[in-house]
Amino acid sequence: MSDQPVDYHPMWAELGLDLPTHDALLGAVGQLFGDAYLTQENRPEGMGYLNFVMSEVHGLRIKELDDYRKSGGKVFGTFCLYVPEEIIRAAAGWCVGLCAGAEFAYDQVEQIMPRNTCSLIKSFMGFKLAKVCPYIESADLVIGETTCDGKKKAYELLGDMHNVYVMELPQMKRDVDMAMWRDEIRALMAKVEEVTGNTITAESLKAAIKEVNDKRRALQRIAATRAADPAPISGKDALLATQVAFYDDVPRFTQMMNALADELEARVAAGEGVAPKGAKRVLVTGTPMALPNWKLHDIIEKAGAVVVGEEMCTGSRYYQDLVSEDAVTLDDMVDDIAEKYLDINCACFTPNQGRLEDVVRMAKELGVDGVIDYSLQFCGLYEMESNAVEKTVRDAGFPVLKITTDYSMEDVGQLSTRVEAFLEML
Amino acid sequence: MSDQPVDYHPMWAELGLDLPTHDALLGAVGQLFGDAYLTQENRPEGMGYLNFVMSEVHGLRIKELDDYRKSGGKVFGTFCLYVPEEIIRAAAGWCVGLCAGAEFAYDQVEQIMPRNTCSLIKSFMGFKLAKVCPYIESADLVIGETTCDGKKKAYELLGDMHNVYVMELPQMKRDVDMAMWRDEIRALMAKVEEVTGNTITAESLKAAIKEVNDKRRALQRIAATRAADPAPISGKDALLATQVAFYDDVPRFTQMMNALADELEARVAAGEGVAPKGAKRVLVTGTPMALPNWKLHDIIEKAGAVVVGEEMCTGSRYYQDLVSEDAVTLDDMVDDIAEKYLDINCACFTPNQGRLEDVVRMAKELGVDGVIDYSLQFCGLYEMESNAVEKTVRDAGFPVLKITTDYSMEDVGQLSTRVEAFLEML
Repeated sequence: MSDQPVDYHPMWAELGLDLPTHDALLGAVGQLFGDAYLTQENRPEGMGYLNFVMSEVHGLRIKELDDYRKSGGKVFGTFCLYVPEEIIRAAAGWCVGLCAGAEFAYDQVEQIMPRNTCSLIKSFMGFKLAKVCPYIESADLVIGETTCDGKKKAYELLGDMHNVYVMELPQMKRDVDMAMWRDEIRALMAKVEEVTGNTITAESLKAAIKEVNDKRRALQRIAATRAADPAPISGKDALLATQVAFYDDVPRFTQMMNALADELEARVAAGEGVAPKGAKRVLVTGTPMALPNWKLHDIIEKAGAVVVGEEMCTGSRYYQDLVSEDAVTLDDMVDDIAEKYLDINCACFTPNQGRLEDVVRMAKELGVDGVIDYSLQFCGLYEMESNAVEKTVRDAGFPVLKITTDYSMEDVGQLSTRVEAFLEML
Repeated sequence: MSDQPVDYHPMWAELGLDLPTHDALLGAVGQLFGDAYLTQENRPEGMGYLNFVMSEVHGLRIKELDDYRKSGGKVFGTFCLYVPEEIIRAAAGWCVGLCAGAEFAYDQVEQIMPRNTCSLIKSFMGFKLAKVCPYIESADLVIGETTCDGKKKAYELLGDMHNVYVMELPQMKRDVDMAMWRDEIRALMAKVEEVTGNTITAESLKAAIKEVNDKRRALQRIAATRAADPAPISGKDALLATQVAFYDDVPRFTQMMNALADELEARVAAGEGVAPKGAKRVLVTGTPMALPNWKLHDIIEKAGAVVVGEEMCTGSRYYQDLVSEDAVTLDDMVDDIAEKYLDINCACFTPNQGRLEDVVRMAKELGVDGVIDYSLQFCGLYEMESNAVEKTVRDAGFPVLKITTDYSMEDVGQLSTRVEAFLEML
């Protein structure tokens, strides 16, 4: 590669981005990343890869998607864990997350949806309306899901602007729900085959299951090292790894995360860490933190504590379970996929006892001093469930702090004060 | 009946109500009813029955439920149209709506659920926590449903305080959803049979279908007269009829509503109305208005207009469709019930094109001058769908006003100003 920086503006223009606004966005995200990430001390060497990914998040990666599409490949954009990447990859599709982690163009968003909508939904709609997300503009199909009222209705609005397909997620986990969900996965297969023009076979699905499991295994290795005291990696860096997992090339990402895990395991063996041994250890649980939402982790870690786990979709829910690799027939593989995905404990299910068990188990395994229950304001599901989370966590003997916030930076001072007071109490 | 008023306090005490708080509530509702209803001029004689029902809403009706339960009968409390009354009645259960239309004990509610929850949900929880709803205290089983994020999670909280069973509603209306919904109705049947100890037979279900259809037919007759100019009944009175339909004894209510319909039809034939011919005619669409939520109708009609239709769960969605009466076997009847109920066009479905068609059809059939789209604040579904409603209604040539409010009376002045400005523009 030459030293001359590549000018991606022609590619962004071809995708239809609003170039001046997009330049401003990249500048802001770069600044945010610098402040939150590059100020950290004693980071693992392996984070160099994620720094590079971030520096090229709208550049090189989009170029790869662009090249793939020009060679006949198809790209699928998703917003949610419940869309099985295995199915997409088995038809030679590429799966990418969509931009949703920053306040953008809310003035335009509030013309078509209520102000009282959670930041994640307002954000994805803002990125679309302002034409600043190269991922959604690269997506041949956006695959939505009926996980919450807000997203369910937002996909209807998005459907006026983009090619959208919506999967229906059941709301309980009984046998009848599993049966319905298996059908839903099969319907998605048919849709993905139609869009890609490729047939999913037992061979291709088996390979895709292995490949995505390998990605999860690499993230599991990283997660496991965080049980050590001192923690070998900051919560911010570990969060970034999960966030990037939604966007990056799968085999490359897996390889780089295994290299990072090697380094973290060596650090643990040597008793090395990012924060001093004995630093307060925090588990964060709640609504997903989409890239570049690093706000809470940044506050916690700048206050001297270390986040050692995330019980969230950008955390353990993403990687804790694998799809069985035992199946031989296509049908059995699809059933295994359905089962793994329905096992995810999102607050959209009723009841959702599994999540409460996960939080307590993680708090114990990771040896945390306290739990922070994080809700995006107007996320009715997680806000409503936090009553049970707090009660369960307290009953298990862990102090808990409930934080409700959004993507704005206006409450950072106030949140810092609350977090510091909580940490002092631990 | 003697002239001596009955003292229901012993009955309320037996139900576990908080007597002083409940007395205060009844006083407030009585005052509200007086101000909104008894100040109306030229009301149909038939409204005398509904005045009486309201005066005894926590009295005589609760006594009836109490007597029924003491004779071995079972009472089922519901919050939503999707719970089929036919199934409950076919097992000799009685079905009642639950209190949810007034601000009550929000201080207690906000200790267990977010402040940003819609009034309807906060209200039902407030009535339960403050022990002032004799309907829920009379319910052997509360039957909830997964219609929205808020209710879905609120039933988990309610489950800690009451006997609750939750039906899973699909989120789309495809064949697979209908299949799932049929199973769900059958699961409800089994539950209702278990609670009542009675078996549902083809005979009992056929009779229940006929009985509930008759109730809907009576309400359809009333609704049809509202197409006349002048309208023979105020919107407030028609709304009250639908609200009471959730609570009252079915055959008695049907008989009284048919008598009211007779009177209204005679009024129409004679050209008599409640407002002058030519008064502005308004269709209201949106979130349900649970008893005693009369706020918007009162504002509209005190401004000199008349509400001639409600496209809402406390309106046309309640009575516009009937269950087919053709089926002979129990299985076919259950399928007919599933079909009728899945036809209801709630914003919880995606897509929900049927609702848009209903609104426009009603606006035309009722000859309205304008449409008011009513959302409860924090009701993500209806707030989100209002973008499509407004666009569709405007495209069909009707002016539309969007109102977002809650159960407080603080914004009545501001809403009145907005409604008056809208009516002047028509």
